Amino acid sequence: MSPGQQAQPKLPIPGVKNLIAVGSGKGGVGKTTVAVNIAIALARLGFRTGLLDADVYGPNVPLMMGMNQTPTAVGERIQPLENYGVKLMSMGFLSPGDKPLVWRGPMLHSVVQQFLRGVDWGDLDYLVIDLPPGTGDVQLSLIQTAPVTGAVVVTTPSDVSLEDARKAVRMFEQVKVPILGIIENMSWLQCPHCDERIDVFSTGGGRRMAKDMGAKFLGALPLSPQVRIGGDTGHPVATFGPEDKRGADFYAIAKLVVEGAAEASSVAGPTMTVSD
Amino acid sequence: MSPGQQAQPKLPIPGVKNLIAVGSGKGGVGKTTVAVNIAIALARLGFRTGLLDADVYGPNVPLMMGMNQTPTAVGERIQPLENYGVKLMSMGFLSPGDKPLVWRGPMLHSVVQQFLRGVDWGDLDYLVIDLPPGTGDVQLSLIQTAPVTGAVVVTTPSDVSLEDARKAVRMFEQVKVPILGIIENMSWLQCPHCDERIDVFSTGGGRRMAKDMGAKFLGALPLSPQVRIGGDTGHPVATFGPEDKRGADFYAIAKLVVEGAAEASSVAGPTMTVSD
Repeated sequence: MSPGQQAQPKLPIPGVKNLIAVGSGKGGVGKTTVAVNIAIALARLGFRTGLLDADVYGPNVPLMMGMNQTPTAVGERIQPLENYGVKLMSMGFLSPGDKPLVWRGPMLHSVVQQFLRGVDWGDLDYLVIDLPPGTGDVQLSLIQTAPVTGAVVVTTPSDVSLEDARKAVRMFEQVKVPILGIIENMSWLQCPHCDERIDVFSTGGGRRMAKDMGAKFLGALPLSPQVRIGGDTGHPVATFGPEDKRGADFYAIAKLVVEGAAEASSVAGPTMTVSD
Repeated sequence: MSPGQQAQPKLPIPGVKNLIAVGSGKGGVGKTTVAVNIAIALARLGFRTGLLDADVYGPNVPLMMGMNQTPTAVGERIQPLENYGVKLMSMGFLSPGDKPLVWRGPMLHSVVQQFLRGVDWGDLDYLVIDLPPGTGDVQLSLIQTAPVTGAVVVTTPSDVSLEDARKAVRMFEQVKVPILGIIENMSWLQCPHCDERIDVFSTGGGRRMAKDMGAKFLGALPLSPQVRIGGDTGHPVATFGPEDKRGADFYAIAKLVVEGAAEASSVAGPTMTVSD
């Protein structure tokens, strides 16, 4: 097939069995928090797991994973970093600090490709990709060229977030990426003083949206200061293990992702895998 | 100057005195909520005000402003809609519903230009621009070609939001757009049950960041279910007027924006204005 044709073949990434995209229509809904904690949970559950931070403009994975080293290259292959059993790559490792990346679309395209195929991921059961929010260039590049097994869409229950999340679901559908499910994050807040429940951003909209769009509902997660502090300090709550109630929800979701990915793979038929 | 040269002249927008950009490093921090309420407050304070929703991927202004009509054109000029005394233009008016905009950078560039110069804004004291979050194509296009008077940067007090907000400030500085100030949004939540204060996303980081970066601190806003409901229902809290405590904070900030814009204009020297 000549380059420039519409239906490019989605070449497999050597050694990577499942590619899980975590997306959202709107930013600030906890997409990276979900991606980081799912990746840690998958690793703790015994799967070989990588996490690619594709949010090149706002790469928060290094902060949340407590890593800020500069990766090295062996030959032409960038070596991923690793923490909590998860192999990691992020633009934040290459351009740390306050410097903004004022880049245009075509440059982003090549960065994402470099991260997908130029990083020495090794053999992975799951490569979780933290997409930038929205339906822009990076998402397009990725989805059009990578064999994404399925997508998880994160939203809050607020109407503005749901409005944008529906667009993200439609985007994945248009490019034939199966939706593994919807997560309603910041679903409620338990007051630390009186223990009463506060519906900060309304509640229940994520579950309704999943039903309306024929997608699986993966769960409702509270707005939890502990989860936020875990991310801000580089110790995500999933690191406390599946038995600790602070991060248990993420293990339940990780298991649903494993189930969903298996279903999506079986529907899609056997995949060609290439090993080095 | 020939096209393609680096330092393009920033042509004034005929009739528009001040162009105020509202940006954030991260999404979901309340940037649109701030932009909408500042615009309504400016209009209520007697200024001729417009609001351009440049967040073409996630245009939430129509929902928040309670408008979903399709704008008409007179000749070749798109007529803005108007609500609460504010002239409005948004991609959401042109592409309503769930359909995602899967667009690449160059297409966005022309949309933003069309919105800036092809819309019949008339005479405005303030045109508030709700930028998309981050430091990407749309921000670049806008800042490189429009005479932005100054920028307001919105952040939450969480470390991940502050990390991205610093990048946004640096981006504006690099392209010589004055920072009018920093707003710390979702600074705390007052429990509706026990009235105690909850620091959901930590607190105080916005003020510290402003100090560290030599920028003005415009104020800390609580995470308020009333403000969120106002946006979700198309009745932003600023519509209740400056005396109502639900929206009073936005009037205080609007006045600081007016002061800051006057200072920025006087430092920049007299601006050439062109009228039709």
